[in-house]
Amino acid sequence: MKIGVFGVGLIGGSLSIQAKKHFPNSKIFGFDLSKKNLDRALKLGLIDTNLKSNEIKGLDLILVTVPVNSVISIVFDLFDQIHKDSLIIDFSSTKKEICDALSNHPKRDQFLATHPIAGTEFSGPDSALENLFYNKVQILCETNKTRKSLLDFAIKWFSKIGMKIQEIDPIKHDLQVAYVSHLSHISSFMLGKTVIERSKNKTTILNLAGSGFESTVRLAKSSPDMWVPIFKQNRLNIIEILSQYIDNLNRFKNLIEESKYEEIYDQMKSINSIKTILDGIINSANK
Amino acid sequence: MKIGVFGVGLIGGSLSIQAKKHFPNSKIFGFDLSKKNLDRALKLGLIDTNLKSNEIKGLDLILVTVPVNSVISIVFDLFDQIHKDSLIIDFSSTKKEICDALSNHPKRDQFLATHPIAGTEFSGPDSALENLFYNKVQILCETNKTRKSLLDFAIKWFSKIGMKIQEIDPIKHDLQVAYVSHLSHISSFMLGKTVIERSKNKTTILNLAGSGFESTVRLAKSSPDMWVPIFKQNRLNIIEILSQYIDNLNRFKNLIEESKYEEIYDQMKSINSIKTILDGIINSANK
Repeated sequence: MKIGVFGVGLIGGSLSIQAKKHFPNSKIFGFDLSKKNLDRALKLGLIDTNLKSNEIKGLDLILVTVPVNSVISIVFDLFDQIHKDSLIIDFSSTKKEICDALSNHPKRDQFLATHPIAGTEFSGPDSALENLFYNKVQILCETNKTRKSLLDFAIKWFSKIGMKIQEIDPIKHDLQVAYVSHLSHISSFMLGKTVIERSKNKTTILNLAGSGFESTVRLAKSSPDMWVPIFKQNRLNIIEILSQYIDNLNRFKNLIEESKYEEIYDQMKSINSIKTILDGIINSANK
Repeated sequence: MKIGVFGVGLIGGSLSIQAKKHFPNSKIFGFDLSKKNLDRALKLGLIDTNLKSNEIKGLDLILVTVPVNSVISIVFDLFDQIHKDSLIIDFSSTKKEICDALSNHPKRDQFLATHPIAGTEFSGPDSALENLFYNKVQILCETNKTRKSLLDFAIKWFSKIGMKIQEIDPIKHDLQVAYVSHLSHISSFMLGKTVIERSKNKTTILNLAGSGFESTVRLAKSSPDMWVPIFKQNRLNIIEILSQYIDNLNRFKNLIEESKYEEIYDQMKSINSIKTILDGIINSANK
């Protein structure tokens, strides 16, 4: 089997490892706009060779793991070249614009839209991890538009990797990830900004940083190359949810200004339930 | 040596482990308003016995690890009863009010104000950890007000535990921890609140939560019993810094509303420097 990986970073590299593992007789062709990443992926053995454009027509499986703003144009280009049994899978973080744009294409049945809920704050081929996807949720969207045999093939592979398959409507998906992923990233970036800009001698303040700060600011190390396109594609949901977050912060600040500590206590106690909710999810994921 | 531990939770319990280790012939007397915590600390072997009030006068070392709002009244009570060579050490998270309140007491030289930059989101004796303080910063305030021999004794113990001693003025301390600790907690609680209140069926949204959300929301599991008093004591700093954080979020939201993606990119790229700063601190801490 000939497999093409477009974007040999954290996601593409980690998928390559799982492709090599489960399709032992395959050859992996890598493509990346960054020559440095491509060379590194070759050196690390994530891919077998650099993809040449005349080789696209021979690919049986194409994994698209580029920033969300490039997915649509790349998939359109690929549609023009792929053979009739080839499958293109997209792994990017927003789904609505992509699903809408490709919806009526004659080759739509050779495309599968997914979003693995997995990642780290690092990027590039060196950040690829063999077990990045193990026990993680893999979202699929509009599977009824993908050819049954190709869909079955993909689901079988995802299951072998250890992913938990879940189907969600693209509109709901984009709203939900705005809550549980995009907002976390923004809050973390703004936390980093607030601390950095106030501290002239940066290390003085940050010397006092404990594990709490490190954990809340971790996502502020994430790459803007990946995240700015996500914010752009999910702009309306993000504006709405960011407004709710800012309202909550303003209300909390008012409670402190008015010294309403009992109300603050009750609010925090109620938010503590996030522990039970997350534990429940982790437990059910481990079953 | 007779050691009293007031508050046998995460901090008190972890200190007890280090007291037993470095003062092998000591006896540890525990006190806690929660009978349940006290029983549990006894059962776990963190303390040797429950403190009776007539035993306070015999204590040589007293570790005060109660919520910040109780520190001042407890230390005043202890001052009335301790012998002339006893040392009281406070380990709470804000320093200015405590240092001010005790400043002119005739026994001030038997008191040391500290803040270990260590903790987890958990509380109670079961959360105590042997190595909680290893390689962590231990802030000392106004050490010139502590009797030299008692100060030397405390510093020697902290160093044996593996803590990195650092002296800071109490006013600066409270401002700096508002940036790197209290703000992280508030941002995390409000993140949890925003997600919980929007999701009717809580697990639906949270099913999609990845490690990014878990890491930014981790602190929202923290105990309000500990944190509300901190917010109260550090009220003015928190109001100021929370305003800056909210301003930054509002400006970021405006950039998204105005689709100024290049500016967003530049801002995020610049905040990425938090990585280098934190790595530098971690590296120097490991030296």
